Amino acid sequence: MISKSKIKLINSLSQKKFRDETRLFVAEGTKLVMDLIPAFQCSILAATSAWLKDHEGLKADETIETGTDKFNKISNLKSPQGVLAVFIKPEYHWNVQELSHKLTLALDDVQDPGNLGTIIRIADWFGITDIFCSESSVDAFNPKTVQATMGALARVKVHTVNLVEFLQNCQSELPIYGTFMDGENIYSKKLTQQGIIVMGNEGNGISTETGKLVTERLLIPNYPVGQITSESLNVAVATALICAEFRRRI
Amino acid sequence: MISKSKIKLINSLSQKKFRDETRLFVAEGTKLVMDLIPAFQCSILAATSAWLKDHEGLKADETIETGTDKFNKISNLKSPQGVLAVFIKPEYHWNVQELSHKLTLALDDVQDPGNLGTIIRIADWFGITDIFCSESSVDAFNPKTVQATMGALARVKVHTVNLVEFLQNCQSELPIYGTFMDGENIYSKKLTQQGIIVMGNEGNGISTETGKLVTERLLIPNYPVGQITSESLNVAVATALICAEFRRRI
Repeated sequence: MISKSKIKLINSLSQKKFRDETRLFVAEGTKLVMDLIPAFQCSILAATSAWLKDHEGLKADETIETGTDKFNKISNLKSPQGVLAVFIKPEYHWNVQELSHKLTLALDDVQDPGNLGTIIRIADWFGITDIFCSESSVDAFNPKTVQATMGALARVKVHTVNLVEFLQNCQSELPIYGTFMDGENIYSKKLTQQGIIVMGNEGNGISTETGKLVTERLLIPNYPVGQITSESLNVAVATALICAEFRRRI
Repeated sequence: MISKSKIKLINSLSQKKFRDETRLFVAEGTKLVMDLIPAFQCSILAATSAWLKDHEGLKADETIETGTDKFNKISNLKSPQGVLAVFIKPEYHWNVQELSHKLTLALDDVQDPGNLGTIIRIADWFGITDIFCSESSVDAFNPKTVQATMGALARVKVHTVNLVEFLQNCQSELPIYGTFMDGENIYSKKLTQQGIIVMGNEGNGISTETGKLVTERLLIPNYPVGQITSESLNVAVATALICAEFRRRI
């Protein structure tokens, strides 16, 4: 039986304010919950009896068996899959020294939860273990973002930082890459396997303040060069193209 | 003044059934409408007086001035921009001969309207002028798809075809590329600038029947190779990575 107060708590976690207060977040669906359970402490595992019967021995502080009707009250999915988990938000630590051996993503005010989720999935695909988001970026623990990561959130650490200060800290150790209209063709530019790749906001790109800290200006060329086409690529698509080109060079 | 019957017509166009019956589709927002007006015949241009004052001389079969309240009744956007246009769906013709000089996309049952819109935008970016969708794919004139194209729909022709028959027709003239788990690393494989690139469904990839017609099996490698990461990339992201690699080779 799931209590009214638990239903209220779970529903409240769609709002950042309550996620911040409680340090909890929600994930739904069999594959996602199974991917995240080994990575995060599970505070509440709420599922139908049928689901629990099929998935025994999962570690959770509290397991709640619910009827399908009650379950649908806490589900955010169009087709509820009978399982929802509340996890404790992780606390990650980092230092510049560690980053100096890796390729890392920095997001300057990405706003769309789906885009952020897709970027986390892309980072995972390309072996990028850390993403640093500016404080005004959409929250990585937004339920829409969590769902869009398709489980990649278990393997990629998402940090929220003052992005300008973060880049200032990294500047002496690492090249800082970013895409600009007047950048150098990524396919002919020298790229390193250590560095920070900054991606900008959906509408406005990289902010002026952040842009000043970018040391390597890149351009993703369109085709045929100079032809009028779409003015820009979706930020997740651009992230994938850049990460692929860094990794292709290995 | 916009009549009740016009409001009803416009709202009905969110459903494929009515788009098919009337051969009309809807686009919203200043940039999108301005991009599409030169490309398609505009049946109805519905806008607030303020918007029309700022955008004079646009060609439409019928221009309807509406108050903001009435406009909000036809708008599908969270932040209505005061302009919505109803366009006549284009009728495109094609032949294999023409395609034999180009790179073309074929979509095998892409279901998400946002993904299709993003793929159309990617095609535009990479100079791909034609996309062939299987009959069970999401409709390219779905309002969510149209919005997600960000205007690229004006430059990319989207055809709906029996995909198996289409590929059978192309087979003798063109290589047919597709991505599979057991494909050849796209970064080391020989690629041509003429061909059909088949992209599969979000959950199931390329169907068995379609897969049999693929002559060149590709793989997008993850990094580090062999490491457990996300099992797949979003279909729009994968499309972008493949198109970029074809174009980079030029």
